[in-house]
Amino acid sequence: MKNIGETIQSGDWKGEKHVPVIHAPEKVKKGEAFEIKAIVGEKIPHPNTLEHHICWIKIFFQPKDAKFPIEIGNSEFSAHGESEIYNEPSVSLTTKIDKSGTIHALSYCNIHGLWENSIEISVE
Amino acid sequence: MKNIGETIQSGDWKGEKHVPVIHAPEKVKKGEAFEIKAIVGEKIPHPNTLEHHICWIKIFFQPKDAKFPIEIGNSEFSAHGESEIYNEPSVSLTTKIDKSGTIHALSYCNIHGLWENSIEISVE
Amino acid sequence: MKNIGETIQSGDWKGEKHVPVIHAPEKVKKGEAFEIKAIVGEKIPHPNTLEHHICWIKIFFQPKDAKFPIEIGNSEFSAHGESEIYNEPSVSLTTKIDKSGTIHALSYCNIHGLWENSIEISVE
Amino acid sequence: MKNIGETIQSGDWKGEKHVPVIHAPEKVKKGEAFEIKAIVGEKIPHPNTLEHHICWIKIFFQPKDAKFPIEIGNSEFSAHGESEIYNEPSVSLTTKIDKSGTIHALSYCNIHGLWENSIEISVE
Ligand SMILES: [Fe+3]
Ligand SMILES: [Fe+3]
Ligand SMILES: [Fe+3]
Ligand SMILES: [Fe+3]
Repeated sequence: MKNIGETIQSGDWKGEKHVPVIHAPEKVKKGEAFEIKAIVGEKIPHPNTLEHHICWIKIFFQPKDAKFPIEIGNSEFSAHGESEIYNEPSVSLTTKIDKSGTIHALSYCNIHGLWENSIEISVE
Repeated sequence: MKNIGETIQSGDWKGEKHVPVIHAPEKVKKGEAFEIKAIVGEKIPHPNTLEHHICWIKIFFQPKDAKFPIEIGNSEFSAHGESEIYNEPSVSLTTKIDKSGTIHALSYCNIHGLWENSIEISVE
Repeated sequence: MKNIGETIQSGDWKGEKHVPVIHAPEKVKKGEAFEIKAIVGEKIPHPNTLEHHICWIKIFFQPKDAKFPIEIGNSEFSAHGESEIYNEPSVSLTTKIDKSGTIHALSYCNIHGLWENSIEISVE
Repeated sequence: MKNIGETIQSGDWKGEKHVPVIHAPEKVKKGEAFEIKAIVGEKIPHPNTLEHHICWIKIFFQPKDAKFPIEIGNSEFSAHGESEIYNEPSVSLTTKIDKSGTIHALSYCNIHGLWENSIEISVE
């Protein structure tokens, strides 16, 4: 029996369609708002049907010297064909931080489970 | 006793900081992805503290001839000062629709309750 | 064009399967934890399939003298047949309040939109 | 830099207040509804204040022979003192499964990050 953390998969988002790609500036100013965009399937689209879709992406930030990641935001993709409406697994948030650290994205496919990715960001 | 729908407030987002503003194209092509951006406090910023903040924005779409609105997405703003991280009440989603209709935004302040706004969008 | 609040439907939960029923004590003690249970389809079951299901129930509480309802909890029902797992639209939460008021339940069906119900509770 | 899965903490829920305890029958009948209750702080209560609280618990189920865990439900605890309302970090869901496997709970404290626990359940 694995614990839930061990089931979280990762990889190169350019080759594995489930891995969330995170777009954010490399450097930001302390306390100045910037955008974080997370997308599943940017290069190789993931299915978006009632039977098989990305349900949500969570974004966390862990400052360099912090023990724990803090959840910044959670975005749920709710429409997958109802009334011919499709919400793509892509979200942009606007955030302020005051220390360098790691942005994590955690996403969930209703068939293929949990996937993650992360990038470094520095505060100047 | 009011029902919950009657407690939902609205107004001019340029004058009332709780009202979500919705940015989307006036016209989109059938089945072609476009961006919907919803923001609380774009003109007059809303507080973003542990004590008082915007918790979430939900986006719905109701095609012209449909009886019910369909939820497109739900975005939660989770960080309000933890480790000096602040998530602003702003979200962009990417959506496909195939009929003209109404985009609704519904948002929630932990002190001032539920607020809404809507815009029309046409499919050509 | 209706606003989103006007699209929220209600009715007698014994006859209309979408209306959430709320179970809670009539009287509770100030600051003492009690259970709120909200169910969609207790009497007439609602479908629970990928194509048609209840997505979430939110519970709010509005103290008698308060202007706005406060969200107590949000429960999402995520599995509707994936790996033969079905989550029924039923949730129990444990809450403390210190004034009499109204408990509201707001729920969402991916086909039939938003539904609500409410009950009074008194604090002694 | 750790990935997000490596930041998920666990332990004995009787001694560590963040670890979610999961209550469910040891054996259930195939396709027959049963209750899963997940609680943070059942033995040693966790703080429930605006500054420090449990934000959510997610429940997953992974059938024995399945590669990935499926999310059953997500419960958010939204009120931490607003209008003197407190939602305790406890949730009950009602679920049907048709194979033996592992129930996982994943929870999040706004100060101390992600925590998990799991139990086995068999279908007869
Ligand atoms: Fe997938
Ligand atoms: Fe406010
Ligand atoms: Fe329905
Ligand atoms: Fe904690």
